[in-house]
Amino acid sequence: MEQEYESQLLENAVTELSRLPGVGRKTALRLALYLLRRDLGESLALGNAIIDLRRNIKYCRSCHNISEQDVCPICSDESRDRSTVCVVETVRDVLSVERTASFRGLYHVLGGVISPIDGIGPGSLEIDSLVQRVAADDTVQEVIFALSPTMEGDTTAYYIFRKLSELDRPMPAVTRLARGVAVGNELEYTDELTLGRSIVDRQPFTSI
Amino acid sequence: MEQEYESQLLENAVTELSRLPGVGRKTALRLALYLLRRDLGESLALGNAIIDLRRNIKYCRSCHNISEQDVCPICSDESRDRSTVCVVETVRDVLSVERTASFRGLYHVLGGVISPIDGIGPGSLEIDSLVQRVAADDTVQEVIFALSPTMEGDTTAYYIFRKLSELDRPMPAVTRLARGVAVGNELEYTDELTLGRSIVDRQPFTSI
Repeated sequence: MEQEYESQLLENAVTELSRLPGVGRKTALRLALYLLRRDLGESLALGNAIIDLRRNIKYCRSCHNISEQDVCPICSDESRDRSTVCVVETVRDVLSVERTASFRGLYHVLGGVISPIDGIGPGSLEIDSLVQRVAADDTVQEVIFALSPTMEGDTTAYYIFRKLSELDRPMPAVTRLARGVAVGNELEYTDELTLGRSIVDRQPFTSI
Repeated sequence: MEQEYESQLLENAVTELSRLPGVGRKTALRLALYLLRRDLGESLALGNAIIDLRRNIKYCRSCHNISEQDVCPICSDESRDRSTVCVVETVRDVLSVERTASFRGLYHVLGGVISPIDGIGPGSLEIDSLVQRVAADDTVQEVIFALSPTMEGDTTAYYIFRKLSELDRPMPAVTRLARGVAVGNELEYTDELTLGRSIVDRQPFTSI
């Protein structure tokens, strides 16, 4: 009985909105009614921003970060250190590392980590392209693994490490992110594994 | 430094998404990157659904419910009971009452309730149109207030009641939703005000 009166346009918008992660039908309805109440221009801006985003964003030919050109602004910035490649899982991780302002090298976005349970093997990730990139470019002196400190992240790093060591060129330095207690966190609330690791990996004390 | 490399298209989508209620910039970024990962068709469908919704939905000339025609399907359904008008705050309330399948009359959507603190006076609501509708249509025999059981809801009901009583036609019956303990709720968790009200408004016991 309910369906009979419902607007097809509203129904359609609710269905599409409820496909977003974390958005159920109730939230989708709330969002749709909000879009109806808002200024026409603002709601159209949202719709168009989504369409433009999906239509016009490409992936960088070199590092697979999102980009509006064939080569992303980071890869084409001559002032960045081209000898260091930071390997990350996702586009979001690029943004996170950039935000630290602690890294001036280039990136390589894998698109995930090896996870047999989820059916993700090396072939579905940008691993071959990373290995080829290092093989073809002697300027790469260091590969940093900035992957999640999980079984999957470690497996992926190890897999890439082996591939790199088989290359017919001098092996670049291979490093990974430091693991230890989080800055500003209380020791009491740090889990045992992390705390244990931070003792094993202890660093010389400096006055900084 | 971060801004320099960020895609304008992504930035734009994140900004527009973060204007939605309950969506911060972090969630907006997560949604935008999700839209990028999804099939082109699905993401375009969302963008187009939002644009179509906002461009093509109208409000019913009679009850101000959302509609794709000048008069909504409920108002134009000859099988509905035209003698009863249920006054609600929002389009969402229409959907809620319809879902109960307990009401076969017509609606009138006010667009909110009188709330001086939020700067909402009678003039910004569809109150005049309701009064005119009742004045012009002798078939209306009952007006049901299905407004929130709050100070603002009560004030709005009282304001409309007074306006209706000044009309040059026989006063329609005016009712409001029953207030009391929620069906299926334990008494222990019902607030005092509601419980007290449910005692004052107690009903003859029947075997149903």
